[in-house]
Parts: sequence; structure tokens; C-alpha cells
Amino acid sequence: MAAHLHLPARVGRPIAEIDTPALVIDLDAFERNLDALNRSIAGRDIRVRAHAKTHKCPEIALRQIAAGAVGVCCQKAGEAEAMVEGGVGDVLVSNEVVGGSKLARLARLARRAKVGVCVDDAGNIDAVAAAARSAGVTLDVYVEIDVGARRCGVAPGDAAVALARKLRGSPELRFAGLQAYHGSAQHIRSMTDRRAAIENAAGAVRQTRAALEREGIRCPIVTGAGSGSYMFEIETGAWNEVQPGSYVFMDADYARNEWAAPLPRFEHALFVLSTVMSLPAPGRAMLDAGLKASSVDSGLPSVWHSPGIRYTRPSDEHGVLELDADAPMLHLGQKLLLVPGHCDPTANLHDWYVCVRGGMDQGTVEALWPITARGAGY
Amino acid sequence: MAAHLHLPARVGRPIAEIDTPALVIDLDAFERNLDALNRSIAGRDIRVRAHAKTHKCPEIALRQIAAGAVGVCCQKAGEAEAMVEGGVGDVLVSNEVVGGSKLARLARLARRAKVGVCVDDAGNIDAVAAAARSAGVTLDVYVEIDVGARRCGVAPGDAAVALARKLRGSPELRFAGLQAYHGSAQHIRSMTDRRAAIENAAGAVRQTRAALEREGIRCPIVTGAGSGSYMFEIETGAWNEVQPGSYVFMDADYARNEWAAPLPRFEHALFVLSTVMSLPAPGRAMLDAGLKASSVDSGLPSVWHSPGIRYTRPSDEHGVLELDADAPMLHLGQKLLLVPGHCDPTANLHDWYVCVRGGMDQGTVEALWPITARGAGY
Repeated sequence: MAAHLHLPARVGRPIAEIDTPALVIDLDAFERNLDALNRSIAGRDIRVRAHAKTHKCPEIALRQIAAGAVGVCCQKAGEAEAMVEGGVGDVLVSNEVVGGSKLARLARLARRAKVGVCVDDAGNIDAVAAAARSAGVTLDVYVEIDVGARRCGVAPGDAAVALARKLRGSPELRFAGLQAYHGSAQHIRSMTDRRAAIENAAGAVRQTRAALEREGIRCPIVTGAGSGSYMFEIETGAWNEVQPGSYVFMDADYARNEWAAPLPRFEHALFVLSTVMSLPAPGRAMLDAGLKASSVDSGLPSVWHSPGIRYTRPSDEHGVLELDADAPMLHLGQKLLLVPGHCDPTANLHDWYVCVRGGMDQGTVEALWPITARGAGY
Repeated sequence: MAAHLHLPARVGRPIAEIDTPALVIDLDAFERNLDALNRSIAGRDIRVRAHAKTHKCPEIALRQIAAGAVGVCCQKAGEAEAMVEGGVGDVLVSNEVVGGSKLARLARLARRAKVGVCVDDAGNIDAVAAAARSAGVTLDVYVEIDVGARRCGVAPGDAAVALARKLRGSPELRFAGLQAYHGSAQHIRSMTDRRAAIENAAGAVRQTRAALEREGIRCPIVTGAGSGSYMFEIETGAWNEVQPGSYVFMDADYARNEWAAPLPRFEHALFVLSTVMSLPAPGRAMLDAGLKASSVDSGLPSVWHSPGIRYTRPSDEHGVLELDADAPMLHLGQKLLLVPGHCDPTANLHDWYVCVRGGMDQGTVEALWPITARGAGY
């Protein structure tokens, strides 16, 4: 049967019975992460638009919205479709969408939900407007500026103003503001350097807002900021909406960041449960979770609460563990929890979240949540 | 809709209309790869058991079998299920399977197809036997020996004989031979060093066969060998079955190997089709294919037939292209083909192969093949 029909666990059964490899959420830690985000922004006039590219799961998006988020962001039209089908009423594709069939799908989605999209090209604005006109909808459009990530986005200032002016000429499009996301800053290890990168980005935002004001163009929203930096964006005062995603799960790469106030201490809430399936030689054990179970693009997974046991080499379907001399003895069939190196692409490998309540040692499966935007890169 | 319901292309339409990112097979090159494998082993008494972990697609497995393969290998029980459901009648799980529910599924599968599995532990043999007894089936069991990969498998010689002897005590299990696969040797760049690693592995096989013969235990099959080395295994005479997988597709990592006779010249037949979705600055372009479309564990993808254009940085949903000064001008919406760094985990990210006939420039979509074992890591 196809993977989305293979249920890795049963509700009400203990964690020990989960089939592996499985993607497991510690629900208690997950909920504490939602609370920690809210506490960190309490009393501030700031909107949270949680990033759904991290989890690709409407069940999680709805919980983020119940906790106060105005909606979610996505990176692809297919993700946005999955969110709207799952009951989310407000979705921003925080990315450019290029191509007639993709834009047609996105515009049709705006019949059922509030939908926004980013642009960084004048010709693309014409294509977005044509799609909106054809579907009979109005779209929120954000001009993306490059604030240091050197990915998408026009230069701050005049280039952004030119696109905003063009947007005002399309009745189907509403200039909603600026997308200003410094992705690569999220992983700058030092707090000082990370803050400096965001202060630099804030300069680019202020310059662009000033240029818009000189043209008499109101900029309702400045949106951006990830889990590793969002409090810095807020402190600059240049953003009024933040887009944290990884905060719900965290991962081994984020754990390597220096992490202190004003950022709250988020907890690891996402794990890959795996089984010891070979003990071929002293000091070495093999897990059933390799590249196809836990993404290694940002480093190897770490073994949760297992001193002396290191995940040292992935292959497609195996993970090699090296065991220190004083590590606890492992036995065949034993289950270990991995903290993924990078939560987003790891979630994209699985069809189900197995949600555990009561801790990762003795907890019980409370729910299975389908990862309905898994593979929705289109 | 879920990703397996989103069809990225229509049969009969030109390649230019394929939605992106999409996994595309050049059918002409794919078929030439099947032929090249057959020509390389012509006149030799050797069985091909193609590795389905590469493609996870019964449509491809059936074509490999039609071309002469005795069946396929898989790495997981879930992959084996998908192959049998797709019409494959002979599947070897070239890996250990640990855990009662997985073994029960595997044993039930043996009611519908010839099924084999590997062992490297005496306790696991008892568990495999119990599952076979419970399902009322007989399983082929291979003892895996470590021939240098330092992954699973017992040491060559006496340890393997002890397991083979134990197998003979279980009427539900048939000792089918040795699994002897040197995975890491596949990627040794130099032909000389790669051949030396396999000659070393052959010594381990011969030592084990001799020890089995001393005990009067017949060893019908020695199976192993991947696309990067299988002609070396054949030349040693120690194997009578080979397990190439990547040969149907090849990838950018295999292309970095030194490659000469006796190995045939396989062609790139697998591509990630992607779209230029931002041209933010001179010398830089953004593709819509990042970590979630093309796996980077074995290096970045290369851009097919595009001198002066380099894929230099992936993020989750973006690929950064750097353009040399003399590179051809790109335009928004232009489609480019990427050769994945590593074909196996890349195939595991997608739900469909879009099969193109007539070349990657002007070809036509001939078929869509579902990747039914995508995500079947259980």
C-alpha cells in the first residue's frame, strides 16, 4: 500500500509499539513551544503568521492559529492548497509563483480563503493580475526585497517602489506590503552577529518604507523573520508581522545556535523514532533510519538522551551508530529517538506525525496527523 | 490534494508543459541503460537482481525483469510490499528486518511471491522462523557478511557458518546463500582502488564459502554488487548474482567516479525539471527546486547541458544558480534540467516519474509512472 495508507501507530497505544522509522511529536513540548512564542511577544503589537513549510500539516496550522497566529505562510501553491483544504482561512505564499497553471491554481484558491503572494518582477505582476482577473478574485501582493539573504527579492528602495506603483495599477491586486525575510541569518551561530544581520536588514526595510512614503504609497504590513531571529526583527520596530516556523519543532542545527533572551528557549519536539536492526560488531550498531528518514543537509541527527552513542554515518536506509566504551548496551529491536538535523526537509519525508502525550519515555499515542502537504513542492 | 493525486504532466504533451519541480525520465536513455547492463554480462553465467531501492517503482522493476533480471531487491518490508502489489513475483529484502510486525508483514507477502530476507543475528533467525511458521510460508534466508562496508553483516567465515547451521534447523527457512555487498566501494573514485576493494571482498566470500563447504553446507547464491563495481565482482568469480540499482538512472555523484571498461557507460536518465522563478540580480537566478526536490547528501545537482550555469546553494524550496558572464541569458519561467546529486533519495521525494520520449529538448510525455514505494521506509 502507498505510504500515506500505512499507519505507523495506533491511538492509545504506548510509544514502544510505534512502527519505525516514524516521525514523532512530543505534544507536551510542542504545546510549550506555542506558549513560549506567545509569551515572548506578549504586550507587543505584532502579528504572527506561522510558517507551514516547516510542518506541512493543517492540524498543526490550526493549532498555531488557535494560539493566536493570523494565518500561515507557505512556499508553494501546492502547500497553500493543502492548508486551505485543511481548514486554514488565511495563507500567504511567502515566495514568488511563476507559471500560468500554478498562478491559476493559486487564484482559484482565493475564492475559498484569503490568499497572498510575493513578487519581485514586473512581468510576473502582469501574470499574477491576469490569473486573479480570470478567477474573479482579488489577491494580496507583497513586494519581496532582498534584505541580505541573496535569494529572491528586488533591491531595497526604488526598485521596490516601482513594483508597488505597478501593483496599484492592477485592480485585482492589493499592495499588502513588503516581504523582508533574512533566511540565512537564522543560522548565524553568535547572537551578536545574528542581531547585527537583522539590524542591517531593518535598515533596508526602513529605506524602502521611506521611499514608498515619498510616493504616497501606504505599506500596511512588513512581514518576515524566522525562529532564530524574530525577536530581533521585533525589537527593531521595522516589522509588524513575523513568520517563525521551526519554533514548533526545533532541530539539531538550531540547537547549535547560541540561544538566549530575548529569544525564548524552544524545546525539541520532533523526533525520528528508529530501531536498532543490526549489532554487527562491538562499538557499532545500525539503525533503520537513514537519508530517507532524516534529512542530513544541515548535519547529522543527534541521538536523544543517549550519552556515548553517536550517529556518525547515514546511508539510504541505515544509520551507523558508534558507541563509546562506556555507552549503555543496546539490544536488537531497541528503539532510539533521533533529533533531526533539519526539521523541514525531514518532515517532508514522512506521511504521518505520531503525536505522543506523556513524555518520550513512557508516553502514549494521542493522535496521528497526516502531513498532507508532504511532497507538495509544485 | 495530496501529492500523489497531483499529476505533473499529461501524456502526449511536450516536455515544456510539465509542471515543476518534476522528476523526469529520459526513456530512451533509460532503455539504453537496460541494454548496456545486458551487453556487459552477455555470455556470463550471472543472475541480475535489480535493486528497486533506487527507483521504488514497480513499472521500472517489471521492465528490468522483462530485460532479464530474475527479480528485484528491496531494503525494507514496505518496499517489498509495493513491489509485489505492482506485480513483481520475486523480491529479496537485501537487509535485516527486525520487529514482530514487520516480519509478520514480510512473511504474509511470501504467500503471494517468492520472498527472501537477510540475517546477521541468531536471535533474529528465531524471529524470522516464527513469523514464517505463523504465516505458513517458507522464506529464503541469506546470511549477510561484512565484506568491507562496515555496515550490517557478521564477520566472514565461522560466524556466518554458525548462522547457516542454525538456519538449517528451521524447516520454515531455506538457507539461500550469502549477501555480500560492499556499499561504500561503489563511490571509490579510482577504478584501481575500487577494483582492489572488491578483490578484498571476494577474499571474504571465498573464505566463507570454504568454511561452509567444510561443514557440508551448500551455498546456492552469493549476491551483492552495485552499479559502480558489479563487473569487478563478476570477474572475481565469487558472486553469481549482482544487485545493480543506480545504473537505470545514474547521478552526479556516480559521474564523479572514474568509469571505464569493464563497466559500461551508463547515461544520465533521471532529471529534476525546474523553473527559473526569480532573476533578482545580475549573475544570479533562482530555481523552484531545492532540498525538497533534489537530495544533496552526496553533493549538489548539476545543471544539464548548461555551461556557465552552476547550482551553488540549495535551500528548502529554492536552488541558487550562479551565472558566468558568458552564460546564456535566462528568462523568468524558463525550465532547466538538473542531474540529481544522488538518485535514490531524490526519487524518494517525488510521487511520479514523468517519462519523456524523444529527447530532453523537444520530447513528449509518454507515460506517468507512480513511485508507489515512495516513503515506504517501514
